[in-house]
Amino acid sequence: MEPVGRKLWAIAEGYIPATSHGPEPAMRSHETACLLNTGDRAAHVEITVYFADRAPVGPYRVEVPPRRTRHLRFDELHDPEPIPKATDYASVIVSDEPIVVQHTRLDSRQAENALLSTVAFPGDA
Amino acid sequence: MEPVGRKLWAIAEGYIPATSHGPEPAMRSHETACLLNTGDRAAHVEITVYFADRAPVGPYRVEVPPRRTRHLRFDELHDPEPIPKATDYASVIVSDEPIVVQHTRLDSRQAENALLSTVAFPGDA
Amino acid sequence: MEPVGRKLWAIAEGYIPATSHGPEPAMRSHETACLLNTGDRAAHVEITVYFADRAPVGPYRVEVPPRRTRHLRFDELHDPEPIPKATDYASVIVSDEPIVVQHTRLDSRQAENALLSTVAFPGDA
Amino acid sequence: MEPVGRKLWAIAEGYIPATSHGPEPAMRSHETACLLNTGDRAAHVEITVYFADRAPVGPYRVEVPPRRTRHLRFDELHDPEPIPKATDYASVIVSDEPIVVQHTRLDSRQAENALLSTVAFPGDA
Repeated sequence: MEPVGRKLWAIAEGYIPATSHGPEPAMRSHETACLLNTGDRAAHVEITVYFADRAPVGPYRVEVPPRRTRHLRFDELHDPEPIPKATDYASVIVSDEPIVVQHTRLDSRQAENALLSTVAFPGDA
Repeated sequence: MEPVGRKLWAIAEGYIPATSHGPEPAMRSHETACLLNTGDRAAHVEITVYFADRAPVGPYRVEVPPRRTRHLRFDELHDPEPIPKATDYASVIVSDEPIVVQHTRLDSRQAENALLSTVAFPGDA
Repeated sequence: MEPVGRKLWAIAEGYIPATSHGPEPAMRSHETACLLNTGDRAAHVEITVYFADRAPVGPYRVEVPPRRTRHLRFDELHDPEPIPKATDYASVIVSDEPIVVQHTRLDSRQAENALLSTVAFPGDA
Repeated sequence: MEPVGRKLWAIAEGYIPATSHGPEPAMRSHETACLLNTGDRAAHVEITVYFADRAPVGPYRVEVPPRRTRHLRFDELHDPEPIPKATDYASVIVSDEPIVVQHTRLDSRQAENALLSTVAFPGDA
């Protein structure tokens, strides 16, 4: 079967709450890019992070092995620099192999957590 | 790289709860259109707001600078008029440059907040 | 401008919780199909509801006036019959004019409400 | 009417929380693939589950009768093996007839439940 997905994805929403309730690390407020590589070759992925008032940062480089999923927490990206908390951002994800990208936030700023999720926007490239 | 996205987007859901719990302004109930412009030129964006029982209002005009994201809160739109609370609405977003649009609501009517999000519907234009 | 959207949409998720907390009717657990008609002609919409273990029911008929949005609560559909609570269902939405459809659930089974939303799946017709 | 949907879908997000609050089974933390078959023939569906650090598992086989919906809970899949809790996964859904797939999580790790949902990513096959 051909690998499923696209090589270019965008997530316009991005916001990592600065505060959390509940046990670490699962219930720490976070956002995730869930990456799925159904193909037979490793996918080399580059993420660029956009902000409201300064130049984009990146690329952050990650690899998704063949026939594996990787749920990448934005609060665990450190190179070239951590993504600041409580700050609007967005991201573009480029892969050398087709992948599928889904975006999720767990928000535990208040005592009970909230969730959001959407498939990312698939680019044409 | 070509800019990612489309020039026409629609969000059929719209509802700004009239009440909130938690610290202002982050936890005030609100809806957001997250706009991402990955291109090299500023995007001039016009938003038209549709209602159930009266003529559409707009355009609301905003600009997204090149290589920036702008997370636009609907409760901060004032010109030509504020969007009423506790009222069903919908929106159409037209840009002169390709952008990506994602829709989000933070609902803090009850003591613990809830979230929803989806990529907006990309039009063909 | 050409009207935005499609004439055929599907929502595979459907479940109206049987219990609720909070003031009526806003916080009663419910699901909504948000319909947006950006065109100059009224959209005549027919909704068919699918179940796990019996024949589909419908069509439910609603009209969306030109340049208006209608946020249709599934718990307010009564003709040909109400949609049962606490029951898995799905829906197909056919319109004679292009519309945009977004699906939402407010779930207040527990004391604090939860939300989900997604743009419906646009069919090819 | 032609059946609505596609024959290949992917859900990059997958995570079944290990803990729950509230009455069983409705409020047990779970994820669901909502499958809708609008056609006149039964859809034979095969689900493959991908992990971060081991080979994919599957196929899990389910059938969706003609003109029916089936909301499949991932925590009720047992053959070839149960999906582990508190573990990142993803899924690919292949059907011999067009179907529509929507993904949902009910997360009741904390006292008040949270929800997420999105239409799955439709493949090209």
